[in-house]
Amino acid sequence: MASTISPPPAAALASIATPTILVGQHQLYTRIRLATPADVPHIHKLIYQMAVFQNETHLFTATESSLASTLFNSPPFQSFTVFILEVSSNPFKNIHSPAFLPIERTVLVDHVAADPEAETFKSGVANEDDDGDDVTVAGFVLFVPSYTTFAGKPGFHVEDLLVRECYRRKGFGKMLLSAVAEQAVKMGFKRVEWSVLEWNVNAIKFYEEMGAKVLTEWRVCRLTGDALEAYGDANY
Amino acid sequence: MASTISPPPAAALASIATPTILVGQHQLYTRIRLATPADVPHIHKLIYQMAVFQNETHLFTATESSLASTLFNSPPFQSFTVFILEVSSNPFKNIHSPAFLPIERTVLVDHVAADPEAETFKSGVANEDDDGDDVTVAGFVLFVPSYTTFAGKPGFHVEDLLVRECYRRKGFGKMLLSAVAEQAVKMGFKRVEWSVLEWNVNAIKFYEEMGAKVLTEWRVCRLTGDALEAYGDANY
Repeated sequence: MASTISPPPAAALASIATPTILVGQHQLYTRIRLATPADVPHIHKLIYQMAVFQNETHLFTATESSLASTLFNSPPFQSFTVFILEVSSNPFKNIHSPAFLPIERTVLVDHVAADPEAETFKSGVANEDDDGDDVTVAGFVLFVPSYTTFAGKPGFHVEDLLVRECYRRKGFGKMLLSAVAEQAVKMGFKRVEWSVLEWNVNAIKFYEEMGAKVLTEWRVCRLTGDALEAYGDANY
Repeated sequence: MASTISPPPAAALASIATPTILVGQHQLYTRIRLATPADVPHIHKLIYQMAVFQNETHLFTATESSLASTLFNSPPFQSFTVFILEVSSNPFKNIHSPAFLPIERTVLVDHVAADPEAETFKSGVANEDDDGDDVTVAGFVLFVPSYTTFAGKPGFHVEDLLVRECYRRKGFGKMLLSAVAEQAVKMGFKRVEWSVLEWNVNAIKFYEEMGAKVLTEWRVCRLTGDALEAYGDANY
């Protein structure tokens, strides 16, 4: 299902200040930046991984073309917006991004698992000059403005969030969600919402620790497929 | 709560074809059109009525100014969009609306209750020339694009829908929701979603009859107020 936060995020952000490196620990540079059309192949693969994770590959019909033609038609934050999470073992070079200053953090991790898809997810945006940089796309979050009617103010709805398997349990899910919340506050928005599976108690606990409330009484109604298409006939 | 469909809508659309009028029945002209900034005072009052209906007036902080400054910044259907439902005992005069051809229906109702707020909700848009027209605002629906990630296509999220008390049980809720679904199909969108209270079995039955599925496993997480504002501090 697509309107979801998929992976149970890790329990805590490893560190946000300049850390003291202990024996066995590794320093990992992370960056959250706006997606560009050059990220579409990676976004497409990440969405497919989400469909696999949710056992819903039968619903996966997105193509690079459908993503490219729908995701970049409005200025960032006014419609569909994607943040990309990149990791690297080296400091990032600057990129030009006037609409959103990338968020860079250096985190200490006890263990850096080998990334079996490092080549597939090599960041095209960060490694443009192909000078041996190892910047890798580790995850993404897709969000869109919503509207808090009672406040008469916008908010954000987080449609999907994924951190790739080998980068989980390092606080990256929280970093991505926090980046959306921070952007919401900057813009004077009054709400950030997303969906969670009711049996995913670890995720719910994590979201509650982030300050979110789970609305137990509300259910999502969804009109799709043939049932929706029927409304295209004016005689419904 | 604001991200909701408020009133349990009526069971069926009274009639969509040219009707045969039976004794005791009344003909009511209805129109669904795009809201304009001139509708803001009515939208503001409708949202307040929704807060009253949901016992949440303590959350109602919207002002005409906050609505006016947030609702009309993008072309229709690209961001927050409002449809207004008007009723009249006379045929409607044409209005200029290139972005959305108003949907007009004549419905037969067994009983037209006196509208105690007819003067308050007299449509400023339809009655501009003040020539005695009785066009009245009877409800609204506010919706916003969402994104169906697995399809790589947009959808609509219906944030709020309200039909005023004296116009309920006439199929107007279904007309408003159907208008959103019809627009979604027109635009090639793949989903329409909204929320419902899990104990509102009448509403759920009605939505299912409209073809919607209730997602029983998913819960909405919401980050608002001080918990959200905390993310404005970069050191969260």
